[in-house]
Amino acid sequence: MDKDILEINEISGSKMYDLMKELYPICRSITGDGVRQTLKIISKHIQLSIHEVPTGTKVFDWTVPKEWNIRDAYVKNSKGDKVIDFKKSNLHVLNYSIPVNKKLTLEELREHLYTLPEYPDWIPYLTSYYNENWGFCLSQKDYDKLKDDMYEVVIDSSLEEGSLTYGEYYIKGETEEEVLFTCYVCHPSMCNDNLSGIVVLTYIAQIISKLKLKKSYRFLFIPETIGSITWLSRNEKNVSNIKYGLVVTCCGDNNPVLYKKSRMGNTEIDNIVQKVLLDSKQNYTIKEFVPWGSDERQFCSPGFNLPVGCLTRGLFSGNFEKYHTSADNFELVKPEYLKDTLEKCIEIIYVIENNATYINLNPKCEPQLGKRGLYRAIGSQKKLLTSHAAMFWILNKSDGNNSLLDIANHSGLSFREIKNTADLLVKEKLLKEI
Amino acid sequence: MDKDILEINEISGSKMYDLMKELYPICRSITGDGVRQTLKIISKHIQLSIHEVPTGTKVFDWTVPKEWNIRDAYVKNSKGDKVIDFKKSNLHVLNYSIPVNKKLTLEELREHLYTLPEYPDWIPYLTSYYNENWGFCLSQKDYDKLKDDMYEVVIDSSLEEGSLTYGEYYIKGETEEEVLFTCYVCHPSMCNDNLSGIVVLTYIAQIISKLKLKKSYRFLFIPETIGSITWLSRNEKNVSNIKYGLVVTCCGDNNPVLYKKSRMGNTEIDNIVQKVLLDSKQNYTIKEFVPWGSDERQFCSPGFNLPVGCLTRGLFSGNFEKYHTSADNFELVKPEYLKDTLEKCIEIIYVIENNATYINLNPKCEPQLGKRGLYRAIGSQKKLLTSHAAMFWILNKSDGNNSLLDIANHSGLSFREIKNTADLLVKEKLLKEI
Amino acid sequence: MDKDILEINEISGSKMYDLMKELYPICRSITGDGVRQTLKIISKHIQLSIHEVPTGTKVFDWTVPKEWNIRDAYVKNSKGDKVIDFKKSNLHVLNYSIPVNKKLTLEELREHLYTLPEYPDWIPYLTSYYNENWGFCLSQKDYDKLKDDMYEVVIDSSLEEGSLTYGEYYIKGETEEEVLFTCYVCHPSMCNDNLSGIVVLTYIAQIISKLKLKKSYRFLFIPETIGSITWLSRNEKNVSNIKYGLVVTCCGDNNPVLYKKSRMGNTEIDNIVQKVLLDSKQNYTIKEFVPWGSDERQFCSPGFNLPVGCLTRGLFSGNFEKYHTSADNFELVKPEYLKDTLEKCIEIIYVIENNATYINLNPKCEPQLGKRGLYRAIGSQKKLLTSHAAMFWILNKSDGNNSLLDIANHSGLSFREIKNTADLLVKEKLLKEI
Repeated sequence: MDKDILEINEISGSKMYDLMKELYPICRSITGDGVRQTLKIISKHIQLSIHEVPTGTKVFDWTVPKEWNIRDAYVKNSKGDKVIDFKKSNLHVLNYSIPVNKKLTLEELREHLYTLPEYPDWIPYLTSYYNENWGFCLSQKDYDKLKDDMYEVVIDSSLEEGSLTYGEYYIKGETEEEVLFTCYVCHPSMCNDNLSGIVVLTYIAQIISKLKLKKSYRFLFIPETIGSITWLSRNEKNVSNIKYGLVVTCCGDNNPVLYKKSRMGNTEIDNIVQKVLLDSKQNYTIKEFVPWGSDERQFCSPGFNLPVGCLTRGLFSGNFEKYHTSADNFELVKPEYLKDTLEKCIEIIYVIENNATYINLNPKCEPQLGKRGLYRAIGSQKKLLTSHAAMFWILNKSDGNNSLLDIANHSGLSFREIKNTADLLVKEKLLKEI
Repeated sequence: MDKDILEINEISGSKMYDLMKELYPICRSITGDGVRQTLKIISKHIQLSIHEVPTGTKVFDWTVPKEWNIRDAYVKNSKGDKVIDFKKSNLHVLNYSIPVNKKLTLEELREHLYTLPEYPDWIPYLTSYYNENWGFCLSQKDYDKLKDDMYEVVIDSSLEEGSLTYGEYYIKGETEEEVLFTCYVCHPSMCNDNLSGIVVLTYIAQIISKLKLKKSYRFLFIPETIGSITWLSRNEKNVSNIKYGLVVTCCGDNNPVLYKKSRMGNTEIDNIVQKVLLDSKQNYTIKEFVPWGSDERQFCSPGFNLPVGCLTRGLFSGNFEKYHTSADNFELVKPEYLKDTLEKCIEIIYVIENNATYINLNPKCEPQLGKRGLYRAIGSQKKLLTSHAAMFWILNKSDGNNSLLDIANHSGLSFREIKNTADLLVKEKLLKEI
Repeated sequence: MDKDILEINEISGSKMYDLMKELYPICRSITGDGVRQTLKIISKHIQLSIHEVPTGTKVFDWTVPKEWNIRDAYVKNSKGDKVIDFKKSNLHVLNYSIPVNKKLTLEELREHLYTLPEYPDWIPYLTSYYNENWGFCLSQKDYDKLKDDMYEVVIDSSLEEGSLTYGEYYIKGETEEEVLFTCYVCHPSMCNDNLSGIVVLTYIAQIISKLKLKKSYRFLFIPETIGSITWLSRNEKNVSNIKYGLVVTCCGDNNPVLYKKSRMGNTEIDNIVQKVLLDSKQNYTIKEFVPWGSDERQFCSPGFNLPVGCLTRGLFSGNFEKYHTSADNFELVKPEYLKDTLEKCIEIIYVIENNATYINLNPKCEPQLGKRGLYRAIGSQKKLLTSHAAMFWILNKSDGNNSLLDIANHSGLSFREIKNTADLLVKEKLLKEI
């Protein structure tokens, strides 16, 4: 992998933001044409392979559900005014609502209305995937305006045999050792959850597809939960190739980057992400694994126990009250945060590609650095230069038991300082990768 | 073991307090009729077996001493007034005093008088078990009133061949794995040290004797030090059955419960007691093992090294200045503290009986909880209910390596929450005990 | 080893100070007659064996350099005044300067002058061992006085085939297990760096040479870096005997004692030094190993990885701004600090000699201490005497897994308390060394 990869990701956050704007209006769900449209747009950037898994397919303890599609939905008062209109926001419909066409009194209608009283301007996002039901979500303010009346309620949806759709992009590297990046594509018009993950992964894939890579990389664009269960069920034999994994989600807001560790908690991906965040000199948060959240729940179920963590900003932060509401929009997500997440991911890949264990070829006493021009000639040794510290640490710790990442962590120097210095020592034949 | 055991221990502290009042007047020592009378009273509540071990019996490095009995003791002035009177408090006599009957000047008498100058109203409690001696203990105030005079000094005691007496109560459970509860019965009229331990153990034994138990339970009512040494010496072959043990003592005062860990420090009893105290949401104190204190010294000697801790309130608390004085009385010990200690012991037994390791029967990805009615139908997952958290933790951690106690500790949920949820998951065939 | 060794080191610090005064004027370097003169003076106190290693000898990655000697050096102005004079301070010459005899303008001269602008009164100490060069070091104040002039520059030195010289003193004990003390003898007129190490090691060696010792002791007086590399190269086969090692340097200033751990960090020497410093009840500092500093760098290179730490006061303290300057003189170093370092080293040797693992001969229950007169007869056990605590800890922990040092650390008692009590228990046949 090229060392100057950092230059590559000078792609501005605005390109990701543009892609987000293109994807925003689509009404996605865990199945249906919304997912297909989304994957088609992503395919303009990376060569996705699209998979369709038929309704009724058994996937571990679950069954692929009927496919849901929706064309329109509204609630009309007796004057013919649409008081709730799917065309204005696809969050208005309880996701996976069955078809409806009836007249109801306000009292009858209310049993199917959902609001967020504590945030009277926001429309909540709710779903009913596995329980046949219908409903409308609306702001508390609009709810309060509804008058006693006879309402025409229409949901022009279908829930039928069909399939679950997901996209996959695989980059073959020198080895079969695999790095998994996964995001989900099942949420309707919300920016942070889940468009931010989609656009960041699309651009990571696009950037690294041009590089010579040691590891192989797999990118998944799947519906949350049922999608990761389906993918794991169909790929069970090969998951042992996954040596590093990240679920990337809710990563476009202004919270510091948050990393939730894998179930094992001390795998190489855990150590790498923590070091990259430390080296960034920015604020960040580390959380221990908990068995709820996003698809890391499935990858880290005890029968798989894969080294998969979750990279996010808002999720688990305690500072994302707009979660699953209409306020998760372009006010919340900004290009600079998307770019920052992208850069961190690229840096994580840099460490994955470059971490290795080296051996000091001259392990008995120090080598004479001066005769190789690696040490100043007039010495008082009062102040140690960083580059000297890096040399000494690498030579001292490279006994075969410590990777560059271990040395960087032990010494407190950045991974890049250690890696660059190791390259220099290799050139001087003082060090060799094992 | 029945799940609603907590209801059972609604037995009020007042019953234990009544038993304490019955036992208080008896002059106990490490041998003699005081112990026998005490065990007889306990036998009214639980079916004790009484053991007599003859004077002179070798028990490891020790020898069972002569039996000591006392009928009366006093110091009379020349007017015939009893200035010190055993009948008023049995603490007045140096425990194990040899018989005396002589006339002494005040100066001669003083060599045999013991006081606590820093607490002028309290009579100290002192012993001279293994050194033949005699003496009187009295308050500094009474000591200061003694005038130059010729005193008649009488101790009507006997120190003769006899035996050491102890009581034992064994409840056979489903397995031979044994839980040991031990207290000592050798202190004269003091409430916290040692009547509190006696009454709490009597009631624990009485309560659990009615239950179906997985483990076997052994209760010892023995003289301190020489009693535990004697018991260990006579039962050396079977002590490996002891998987959990608690010395219960000084547990009726108003200090928070204090647990002193076993010598190993990380055995299951150590983990269980700490979790029960944490789950209680009350103050408590944990102390590392030190090789002094009560009979845990013997059970935790290096040749045995048993998993035996010490459950107390006042001992090791740094807040028990009335220790070994006449002020250790019914002012210090109160029914509510006895009851609290009893409840904690019963809860410890609950965890001992119910802790087990389970295996997730559906370890690959999460099982679909919704179709089993274990998960709400309309999901925004914003707030996680405790019961959901318990389900997720149990399913995620039940890979065969984590007991329910481990899961409770890891998740921060209470043992009862975890246990109740595990029962639910077992019922749904998602979990199985291994 | 005699128990009353502490009495022995009542040798006052003034004797070490006197030796330092004798050694101070000599112009030492990594080779040459300065080292030989120094070793000759040390030989008056201990029977050093002197080694000469010829120029050109290969020692691992290094080569023994040419031998450097110097007779005189000065810079004279056109009036004939010596404006810089080696006779006044041997720091004035860049150590290892090649011979020079020329006339230079001030401008030309300045390229060979070194000062410390931030400390205008101090002469810096600088070297150019492996790069042929010449120069003068002087105070910024004197530098500022230099006027435009034609200067006569003379360095009457020689850099020729010769040898590297070092001294070694070995005391054979009962076992081959070796304790290494090493210091360096290559710095010219500075007190703390390195005369303090030299005088402390000389007196340690002198004191212990009179004792019966379990371990063997080796003292090295070598040039720094090239000397330890040379010694390791010539003694590679036997270094596995080294079980404990200390580089002693910069140990005469008023900083608290500082111990830099060995590379492994948890060896017995690390534990012993830390315990001796803790038991001293004085301030001290512990530093983790870093791969720069003094000769511990070589002993702790990955190919050797010996249990060698560094005992110092000023080094690594962040409080030694006089390091490598003319201000490292008799104002900085004082007899009482030298004496304190010496005492700590002797105490370290005391622990090395006396630490051992014992076994409780009566491991089942406590032995009866009272019948052996080890316990008071009239017991209330309210306060535990330190000697009792030591007895209980030793008996309880002596299961074959814990050394006296382990027990001292675990109990918080001093090593001497534990050792003295262990001796008592051995006498009573309750304990045996294994």
